[in-house]
Amino acid sequence: MKTKILLKEEDMPTHWYNVMADMPNPPAPPLGPDGKPVGPEALAAIFPPALIEQEMSAERWIPIPEDIRDVLRLWRPSPLYRAHRLEQALNTPAKIFYKNEAVSPAGSHKPNTAVAQAYYNREAGIKRLTTETGAGQWGCSLALAGQLFGLEVRVFMVKVSYHQKPYRRSMMQTWGANVFASPSEITNSGRTILARDPESDGSLGIAISEAVEEAAGREDTNYALGSVLNHVLLHQTIIGEEAKKQLEMVGEYPDMVFAPCGGGSNFGGIAFPFFADKAAGKEIALVAVEPTSCPTLTKGVYAYDFGDAIGLTPLLKMYTLGHDFMPPGIHAGGLRYHGDSALVSQLHYEGLVDALAVPQIETFEAGVLFARNEGIVPAPESTHAIAAVVREAKRCAETGEPKTLLFNLSGHGHFDMASYDRFFAGELRDYDYPDEAIQESLKHLPKVKFDMG
Amino acid sequence: MKTKILLKEEDMPTHWYNVMADMPNPPAPPLGPDGKPVGPEALAAIFPPALIEQEMSAERWIPIPEDIRDVLRLWRPSPLYRAHRLEQALNTPAKIFYKNEAVSPAGSHKPNTAVAQAYYNREAGIKRLTTETGAGQWGCSLALAGQLFGLEVRVFMVKVSYHQKPYRRSMMQTWGANVFASPSEITNSGRTILARDPESDGSLGIAISEAVEEAAGREDTNYALGSVLNHVLLHQTIIGEEAKKQLEMVGEYPDMVFAPCGGGSNFGGIAFPFFADKAAGKEIALVAVEPTSCPTLTKGVYAYDFGDAIGLTPLLKMYTLGHDFMPPGIHAGGLRYHGDSALVSQLHYEGLVDALAVPQIETFEAGVLFARNEGIVPAPESTHAIAAVVREAKRCAETGEPKTLLFNLSGHGHFDMASYDRFFAGELRDYDYPDEAIQESLKHLPKVKFDMG
Repeated sequence: MKTKILLKEEDMPTHWYNVMADMPNPPAPPLGPDGKPVGPEALAAIFPPALIEQEMSAERWIPIPEDIRDVLRLWRPSPLYRAHRLEQALNTPAKIFYKNEAVSPAGSHKPNTAVAQAYYNREAGIKRLTTETGAGQWGCSLALAGQLFGLEVRVFMVKVSYHQKPYRRSMMQTWGANVFASPSEITNSGRTILARDPESDGSLGIAISEAVEEAAGREDTNYALGSVLNHVLLHQTIIGEEAKKQLEMVGEYPDMVFAPCGGGSNFGGIAFPFFADKAAGKEIALVAVEPTSCPTLTKGVYAYDFGDAIGLTPLLKMYTLGHDFMPPGIHAGGLRYHGDSALVSQLHYEGLVDALAVPQIETFEAGVLFARNEGIVPAPESTHAIAAVVREAKRCAETGEPKTLLFNLSGHGHFDMASYDRFFAGELRDYDYPDEAIQESLKHLPKVKFDMG
Repeated sequence: MKTKILLKEEDMPTHWYNVMADMPNPPAPPLGPDGKPVGPEALAAIFPPALIEQEMSAERWIPIPEDIRDVLRLWRPSPLYRAHRLEQALNTPAKIFYKNEAVSPAGSHKPNTAVAQAYYNREAGIKRLTTETGAGQWGCSLALAGQLFGLEVRVFMVKVSYHQKPYRRSMMQTWGANVFASPSEITNSGRTILARDPESDGSLGIAISEAVEEAAGREDTNYALGSVLNHVLLHQTIIGEEAKKQLEMVGEYPDMVFAPCGGGSNFGGIAFPFFADKAAGKEIALVAVEPTSCPTLTKGVYAYDFGDAIGLTPLLKMYTLGHDFMPPGIHAGGLRYHGDSALVSQLHYEGLVDALAVPQIETFEAGVLFARNEGIVPAPESTHAIAAVVREAKRCAETGEPKTLLFNLSGHGHFDMASYDRFFAGELRDYDYPDEAIQESLKHLPKVKFDMG
């Protein structure tokens, strides 16, 4: 039984797919504090021109430079798997396929954009990139990419993670990055926090402030973000493009596509290339899967809000739980985001993208079921997609429908085994929709009016 | 630039290569305590008939059952890489290729034999497998394989590792294995040790005793070993067979093949299929790379010795440092073995296989160089092969020889980041050949005489 569908290196996509070209309505622009759209010049302090252009572009196909493809070849094209054993375990007539993005050296889909961002920054003469990281997935990806393009990478890692999760930090150092526990002594933002609270554990918000300060204050330094923005989702579309080609090779086309959804790059990466067909009339469901504890698309509002927790970024039109919503400490750290990509949000608002929230324990159960049948131990983020697929495959077992299901196995769980430990020890819990918390944080939405006309 | 050379699933080898068919002299047989060769019946208490037959077989090609191939397809054929970036970094005219065995779900080459052993045990009606594990690489592989063939797996994990390296334990549990800290209360061996020393940290020797006791004492239970034995090396030859096909696809043939060598399955796996050509007159160097701190092939003696530290196993004719030699606590746990496979040992004794010892710090330097150029963070065992290849590639840079070098990247370092941490912190040291220690332990070699005639 054929298990893996492999593309040759020479069949790796040559262009990224820009979903903005096929959206029925142009995406709502980011707004400044004055309520006016933010122009490219405002972004130039921290991003190179090519990425700003991609952020705004309406071109359907954007060429992938050969230098980027050359690095991507270290792990791409990634294999598409037919999950024969999982199907048998579920006794389902559904066909289950998954794209294995865990094969990248950093262990997730994140390097797809890290490599592109490092390249364009090097082309713009930049010598140094800064970023923030929580558990370290994104920091690792940028460290790897920076190393391969000869850029210094400075990662501000939330202090509590820096000490509690040392292994991703070691990995960043192996790839040559400078990793600072945030708050650090090397930025004003860091020093200000430390003066107030020398024992501060840090937060993603503080780490962002430090990374942006370093980038804004130095001519040769830029900032890199791992999700949410249009150009980041663009770079991930290579996942869905490859998957389409691979399914074609075995004469299949999905009825439904699933991916975890935090900031949106995982979902956009696999789903957008299929959206192109949907926009052209094809029937296909694109399902963004999120945790019930951080139900941005399923329980949030579609409104302008800050991209970060503190209110430093431009305002983005998106589904949000309120920028100061603090989700519970679930183990899928990559899905603990109060907002969502503007592109995914708008498509969901227009009814073109579906969303589903799944509780934590169900996701770990699905992850273990997957590991025991397919071998690979999935990252806690990826188990969200698996849980949704398992639900659908069981439904097919009841109805007899032989649906074709595709999902993005966005990463492996090698650095998340402590979470599996807690699951086996019965220490995990589910979090109901924290109704009051969301209502409270939604009160703090910025008051902006913006008329598209 | 083509980076990966991929075989199609349908081109995965259908037979294992048995090096015994091409050895100039038949391998020396294992001996019992009475100095007489051990017959198949002595092994039947803990191994299934098919594996005992493979252990003794002189057939050149042994078919791989379809059920095994079907599981191997979850990650095989593994990719062969051309290390373009490493070559550039070394400014060498050498061509460097590596086989990436880190792509298996357990992260190393070990599942190649775990899957075969689980299959043959299931076919023999066995319900349960026992084994020992130190850091957990082998335990993980057997847990995965047992799960896929519906066997219960009991892993006795050295207690100090059980507590200090919890993540491989969690992985075994994710794959459904029962993991016991050894010494445990569930065996006589364990209880005896605990009665003497309730705080015992355990050792690999004790864990072996517990696993073998469980297997010998129960009709439905067998024991599985991760290296050293002939059938284990046989199952690994799929690595070298694939590599040969892949090199053929790009018109290459190696001048030298390198692999780490502890018990010998890593080295035998990639090197033996090339030995077939060497036996037929082809010029090729096969280099087993070991740590200077445990220099079995380079500083040991070729003699009959016990396979384990305590003296439970039959006597094996092999290079040994003495069965009670205790190597220093280097980070390449898989290479801390006092002996070596009888097959590798005999080929080395006959001058057909070369050996090279490299010091610890050089191996980590090579690992970091590799990670920064090729992306993948290698396991400390694998860095031994990399260090040897780096030496050779530098030599080629001096002489201008465009040699073709192949090595086995046997595993990733995701569970070894604490070792990289210590390397970066300058806390690692090299161990010189511990002369007196070896001379001391060699005094304890069992006195056996066995005349091949």
